[in-house]
Amino acid sequence: MSSENKSRVLLFEEAVGLTKFELGGKGYGLVEMTRIGLPVPPGLNIPTYVCKEYYETGRLPDGLLDEVREKLKVIEERVGRIFGSPERPLLVSVRSGAPYSMPGMMDTILNLGLNDEIVKGLAKETGDERFAYDCYRRFIQMFGRIVMGVKDEKFDEIMEEHKKKLGVKHDVEIPAEELKKIIEEFKELIKKETGRDFPQNPWKQLEMAIEAVFKSWNNPRAIVYRKAYNIPDDLYTAVNIQMMVFGNMGYDSGTGVGFTRNPSTGEKKLYGEYLLNAQGEDVVAGIRTPKPIEELKNDLPQVYEELLRVSELLEKHFREMQDFEFTIQEGKLYLLQTRNGKRTAQAAVKIAVDMVNEGLITKEEAIARIDPNDLNQLLHPRIDPNVKAKPIARGLNASPGAATGKVVFTADEATELAAKGEKIILVRPETKPEDIHGIIAAQGILTSRGGMTSHAAVVARGMGKPAVVGAEMIKIDLEKEIFTVNGVQVKKYDVITIDGTTGNVYLGAIPTIEPELSEELKILLSWADEIRRLGVRANAETPQAARKAREFGAEGIGLARTERMFNAPDRLPIVYELIFAENEEERWRALNKLLPMFKSDFKEIFREMVGYPVTVRLLDLPLHEFLPRIEELVQRVTELRMIVKSKKKGYKKAMKELEEKEKILKKALQLAEHNPMIGHRGCRLGITYPEIYRVQTRAILEAALELKRDEKKEVHVEIMVPLVSEVNELKILRQIIEDEAEKVFREFGDRVELHIGTMIETPRAALTASEIARYADFFSYGTNDLTQTTFGFSRDDVEAKFMAQYLEKKILPYNPFEIIDEKGVGRLIKIGTREGKEANPKLVVGICGEHGGEPKSIKFFEEAGLDYVSCSPYRVPIARLAAAQARLKELTIKITV
Amino acid sequence: MSSENKSRVLLFEEAVGLTKFELGGKGYGLVEMTRIGLPVPPGLNIPTYVCKEYYETGRLPDGLLDEVREKLKVIEERVGRIFGSPERPLLVSVRSGAPYSMPGMMDTILNLGLNDEIVKGLAKETGDERFAYDCYRRFIQMFGRIVMGVKDEKFDEIMEEHKKKLGVKHDVEIPAEELKKIIEEFKELIKKETGRDFPQNPWKQLEMAIEAVFKSWNNPRAIVYRKAYNIPDDLYTAVNIQMMVFGNMGYDSGTGVGFTRNPSTGEKKLYGEYLLNAQGEDVVAGIRTPKPIEELKNDLPQVYEELLRVSELLEKHFREMQDFEFTIQEGKLYLLQTRNGKRTAQAAVKIAVDMVNEGLITKEEAIARIDPNDLNQLLHPRIDPNVKAKPIARGLNASPGAATGKVVFTADEATELAAKGEKIILVRPETKPEDIHGIIAAQGILTSRGGMTSHAAVVARGMGKPAVVGAEMIKIDLEKEIFTVNGVQVKKYDVITIDGTTGNVYLGAIPTIEPELSEELKILLSWADEIRRLGVRANAETPQAARKAREFGAEGIGLARTERMFNAPDRLPIVYELIFAENEEERWRALNKLLPMFKSDFKEIFREMVGYPVTVRLLDLPLHEFLPRIEELVQRVTELRMIVKSKKKGYKKAMKELEEKEKILKKALQLAEHNPMIGHRGCRLGITYPEIYRVQTRAILEAALELKRDEKKEVHVEIMVPLVSEVNELKILRQIIEDEAEKVFREFGDRVELHIGTMIETPRAALTASEIARYADFFSYGTNDLTQTTFGFSRDDVEAKFMAQYLEKKILPYNPFEIIDEKGVGRLIKIGTREGKEANPKLVVGICGEHGGEPKSIKFFEEAGLDYVSCSPYRVPIARLAAAQARLKELTIKITV
Repeated sequence: MSSENKSRVLLFEEAVGLTKFELGGKGYGLVEMTRIGLPVPPGLNIPTYVCKEYYETGRLPDGLLDEVREKLKVIEERVGRIFGSPERPLLVSVRSGAPYSMPGMMDTILNLGLNDEIVKGLAKETGDERFAYDCYRRFIQMFGRIVMGVKDEKFDEIMEEHKKKLGVKHDVEIPAEELKKIIEEFKELIKKETGRDFPQNPWKQLEMAIEAVFKSWNNPRAIVYRKAYNIPDDLYTAVNIQMMVFGNMGYDSGTGVGFTRNPSTGEKKLYGEYLLNAQGEDVVAGIRTPKPIEELKNDLPQVYEELLRVSELLEKHFREMQDFEFTIQEGKLYLLQTRNGKRTAQAAVKIAVDMVNEGLITKEEAIARIDPNDLNQLLHPRIDPNVKAKPIARGLNASPGAATGKVVFTADEATELAAKGEKIILVRPETKPEDIHGIIAAQGILTSRGGMTSHAAVVARGMGKPAVVGAEMIKIDLEKEIFTVNGVQVKKYDVITIDGTTGNVYLGAIPTIEPELSEELKILLSWADEIRRLGVRANAETPQAARKAREFGAEGIGLARTERMFNAPDRLPIVYELIFAENEEERWRALNKLLPMFKSDFKEIFREMVGYPVTVRLLDLPLHEFLPRIEELVQRVTELRMIVKSKKKGYKKAMKELEEKEKILKKALQLAEHNPMIGHRGCRLGITYPEIYRVQTRAILEAALELKRDEKKEVHVEIMVPLVSEVNELKILRQIIEDEAEKVFREFGDRVELHIGTMIETPRAALTASEIARYADFFSYGTNDLTQTTFGFSRDDVEAKFMAQYLEKKILPYNPFEIIDEKGVGRLIKIGTREGKEANPKLVVGICGEHGGEPKSIKFFEEAGLDYVSCSPYRVPIARLAAAQARLKELTIKITV
Repeated sequence: MSSENKSRVLLFEEAVGLTKFELGGKGYGLVEMTRIGLPVPPGLNIPTYVCKEYYETGRLPDGLLDEVREKLKVIEERVGRIFGSPERPLLVSVRSGAPYSMPGMMDTILNLGLNDEIVKGLAKETGDERFAYDCYRRFIQMFGRIVMGVKDEKFDEIMEEHKKKLGVKHDVEIPAEELKKIIEEFKELIKKETGRDFPQNPWKQLEMAIEAVFKSWNNPRAIVYRKAYNIPDDLYTAVNIQMMVFGNMGYDSGTGVGFTRNPSTGEKKLYGEYLLNAQGEDVVAGIRTPKPIEELKNDLPQVYEELLRVSELLEKHFREMQDFEFTIQEGKLYLLQTRNGKRTAQAAVKIAVDMVNEGLITKEEAIARIDPNDLNQLLHPRIDPNVKAKPIARGLNASPGAATGKVVFTADEATELAAKGEKIILVRPETKPEDIHGIIAAQGILTSRGGMTSHAAVVARGMGKPAVVGAEMIKIDLEKEIFTVNGVQVKKYDVITIDGTTGNVYLGAIPTIEPELSEELKILLSWADEIRRLGVRANAETPQAARKAREFGAEGIGLARTERMFNAPDRLPIVYELIFAENEEERWRALNKLLPMFKSDFKEIFREMVGYPVTVRLLDLPLHEFLPRIEELVQRVTELRMIVKSKKKGYKKAMKELEEKEKILKKALQLAEHNPMIGHRGCRLGITYPEIYRVQTRAILEAALELKRDEKKEVHVEIMVPLVSEVNELKILRQIIEDEAEKVFREFGDRVELHIGTMIETPRAALTASEIARYADFFSYGTNDLTQTTFGFSRDDVEAKFMAQYLEKKILPYNPFEIIDEKGVGRLIKIGTREGKEANPKLVVGICGEHGGEPKSIKFFEEAGLDYVSCSPYRVPIARLAAAQARLKELTIKITV
């Protein structure tokens, strides 16, 4: 259906059946609530396709205002009010509403329809002049800022001056007469700043506001937000024009937000906050700290009861935890918005599991509802409870997890320092949408104002970033860049720790402990395990990591690197012997010294993986990695040469050092490579120095056999050859490994299960998989290296020099080192998997690059027909869930096709 | 037909119809000559499949000797001689003969069938005791060396002792009685060295000789040779057992080799050499210098006449220039071998063209017959005829072309120094098959002995390597490693120049001039141009290269690199400005200084290519390539720092230099990359610094438009973006190039033809070709980089560290940087070409990597459906010919399928 055939303006009750993508999230919620009979102020929706039209033509569609006028007439008749009339004026809000929630990112105008005349009518009608003029001054400020582009501070300055003059502290203390003066000054301000008058014609106001909402889709902070959350740019926003109801008509009025369950813990209990005698913006902006919703039971018991009923109804209808906004006007409840509520990962898991138990949703739905990336939050470290650190302050525990970092006070500085690798805590009185880049950059957020639904809290929860908000006891001096609390002064760059789980704030870096899985998460993951087809293993090379991997449900080790076995400081002298060896015999001598150490390393890992496969990758790094950097050596050698030449004191000692350093430099230069990433490493080393692979093979198998013999513990040994690009490499090395293995088996008079396979990490390996598979029991995609070679991207250089620019300019939709590149790297994976399995039907195919723990990539690996993924232990739960989701999608596709 | 059903032993006349792969080259020639009635001594052939059987079972097949015996009986009856009989003994030669000629690589035994008794019978029969014992001692030495493994020198020592004792110089001067003593000593020597007796039983001799020939297939020098010429290891050798005829029965006897045309020039005239009273080995080994064949007209006029007739017959039958061996026994001519004659490339071209004109072969056959690689010889530089250098010596002009290098006297040292990049001339009294690695390593060969058919001459011609042989005036002292000639002493490592075209030898490096195409080659290439489908362009970045390219028939420039325009010494200061610029404005300032220089560069190139396409590649190298090496900077900075710290004399000057060097070092470190090959280069630079690409675009188009306006010269401008891996890179850069182009076009009020395309040199570019093609007018495969990324092989590192090993161990069949890797890189090329052309049917696809001039690769590019190849100017003729051959093969396949 092209947009010409669709209505451009719809009453809420006319819009039933349209999707969230047409109505926007807010519009959809309003339409649905209208449909099920909840008290929603009447209004109309201009769908997203009109916004699209606006961007395509560069102007509002002809006749749009006429359609608005027509529909508004229906409302006017229903409520007995007239838009633009001084008598019983109808005021409206004009709100944006995009398909995906972008809290605070886009613009909203309240109280639209007021002008110098109508305000008088409103005063007369309500009998509350102060209320009427307060509405008007708020409207002018909002309209002035959003529609006409005058800076907020300028309005604030005027307000502050008047309050100072009056000697009052709060806006509510300003009397009507003073508000009238302020309004005049506001209008002058607009004239001065923009050269245009504040429009007195309500229809003009409405037209300008609609256009401003459309424009807000492309304001810079909306763009930043979409980028941060991967929201497409071509969805556009709808506009909702809705009759105003007023929470600021006295203490039987109010405004608030509710959650049908606790968004932080997931507890099944109405949760929320409210302010009496206030408009919605007062709650969301976090300027006044609102009351917990339970207190409404005392303030307005009937309304509270109705909220409980509404909450129940909403969950039944949407089958999801809802986050809704409400206003109470003179004792009557109105619902202004509902949407699926943002929640912590912990809450998300609990809610999903609870809803299954309540019979609201199925296990599959529960699994489908959790964003696997959000589990990251639960897998974050938390403050060690055994540490007796005394907090310096306490705030609201707005987003769980502990974070440590240097204090900074502006979003810009947070971004700057984070780019240099610093860990940052962003400290602000409150955050605003324009601080979004600072929040993204920081490890955690601390604010002194605002509640659980303030901007900082909502955004931080969405990102799974620890946040403590509304810590009112701390006094922030933005000028001096310090904050003080209970006599303690914290300066910029001082290190603090925040605990978003408890709300505590500590001075310095506080020790944290490793996360454990909650009962609900265990249940959810057990459901995931029932569904998923992909195996999940871990990349682990220490016994600690292996243990953690098992705890998190890994079904073996998919990648045990062996470099650290060479790199340990106490082994470096022997490794130097190996590097400086002039022939095979000398290399054997060094390797035989390393053998018992390697064996003991392998035993430690194997003990943690009894009954499971352990895939050991043979040495991959080039030997020169173990030598000092050439620049350092050149510098020292040059210094020493000059000392020796000078014959000054100490030159004899220098001579000795020079000799040694020159030897190392010579070796380093000899081994140096122009492009080590694609140089003499991986199996190429194994071909040149087969004795290294022999000793590693021996250490692995002796370890396994001794464990079997002495401790009755068995693992499935898998030996993996890195960086193969040609079948003959694997053919030769397989023979060497098998030969050494047979020797060890003979010596022990016993065997263990042994599979030999290869990493697929060059394009050629994938392209010649049908040949390689004939000598491989398994393939494991090394997607890090495969991404490097497929793009011709040296990760070290690319991420430092131009990846940011590539993402900025949308040359790449995302960093292919984080999310698998399906078009290039993925195509190779599909080719390699299909042709490998055709050539060798027993071939097991996995992936052990970083993408193994990334949900979008896991979905791809499911489609590509891989057998397992392997990822860091901390991502194992994420991978289990993502694998189940990928399987569900596969099943859905199969069913629907 | 399995080998069990095939005869294991065949009389020559029985073997008609078997192929060269079964009979071996030598056997095939003998069988064919027998068939057309030429005088061939009777004999029999044991085909290659028997050798294969030998290697499979590890022993001679059961019953083989019985079959030989049976067939030999036929010959015995025909010639009235008996093998193993002292009366009218039949002596035989036992020769190897593989499918491809491997001159001197494998073993031959003459005079077999002699023992202590039979030699007496031979003496009696011939009435020439000296002749009989000379045959016997030769046989024992050959048999002792080849079959029993006694070193040749040991026999030579015995000979030398006796000659010394007798006071004679030549073998022929040794009388029969002395030969008898020598024979006894030879037999003792064998017993002493091997512990076994020289076998007196002729059948045992024959059996051992057959086995020795089989074994010779895998002797080390045969293996080296096969590797050098890419001859498969599984072809095996046949054995030819043939009645001996004797060229050493006095001065109406002799031996020689003939060519039906001159192998050096191609002239149609019987060509060859002979020695009277000699056996064949004397000619080939180059120990005595033989006479030109014309002199036979005087020595044995009838035989000469017969040779002319034979020559005519051979060419008619084989339709190819033949290289044949003959022996004259007491005035009767025997042909012992014929094969297609090795020839210089110049001769090959002339012969092919002449044969077409003579109606012997078709144009297509002429084209198919020339190995394009051999054209290299004709494209070699030669001594500048205007240089009045005086040669120090003159020898035979055995293989054309000029070569300059350091003198070395052993093959081992030649190999060693060549591996270090030295250019070497190998100087030997004569070369032997065991010197083959030295010949491969050297730039040219100089020998003091041997003729045009000596080992050195044949091998050098085969390789297209300059050689001067038989320069008898030079005296070589291998001990002292010097040679002297006319009072000049030349030591090891002195530089000499040899001219294989004239036979001159010069002291020092003599200037050479560029090659030009001969008339015959021009004709041949014009035929190639008629046949080929692939276009041929050149990689050229200087006007000189462009001119040479046109001269050699290039149809445009497929790759004009622009790095040298930045690298010229006088421009480096401006390029430094560019590198050190802090912002775009400063970069523009530097670039605007470079603009007129670039423009003048492009004009110079364009002038050479009027009417043709010129593909200019925008800057590809990373900026740090233009800075000094970091190690050097660190060293200098460290030195300067210490000088400054010491406050010694000159420290103020050092301070100034230090400041400057530190600035450069800082920049160098900032720009340094871990893996620059896959770092911030190519189009990634263009994305970061679009102004560089803008200025290059402007320079190209202003140059083209000014030439059009001022000189009425037009080229087809093609601008090529390097290292694309994602379509958006090209999309953005295409826009920038088009934008700049339109500006220039507007300024000139005129346009030139402009195509914009991209290199395909990362796997991802090939895999996403369907997307990229939508923004590209052309693709050009950069197969060097594509090979690097597909294998994950950094060429600089791989070739230095392990490629030799990989070829040695047959992990790779050849160096993929020289011959295209069809399985990996080739598969990507096929994908990219097919999908690119599907997405954009107008897409033109070429290749500009080094493989563009390599015949085997060109064959692949033809199959893959590319439109053109581009290669270095000197390889353009090779590419034209190879492209025609590839097309012929394509046509043949299409016809036969």
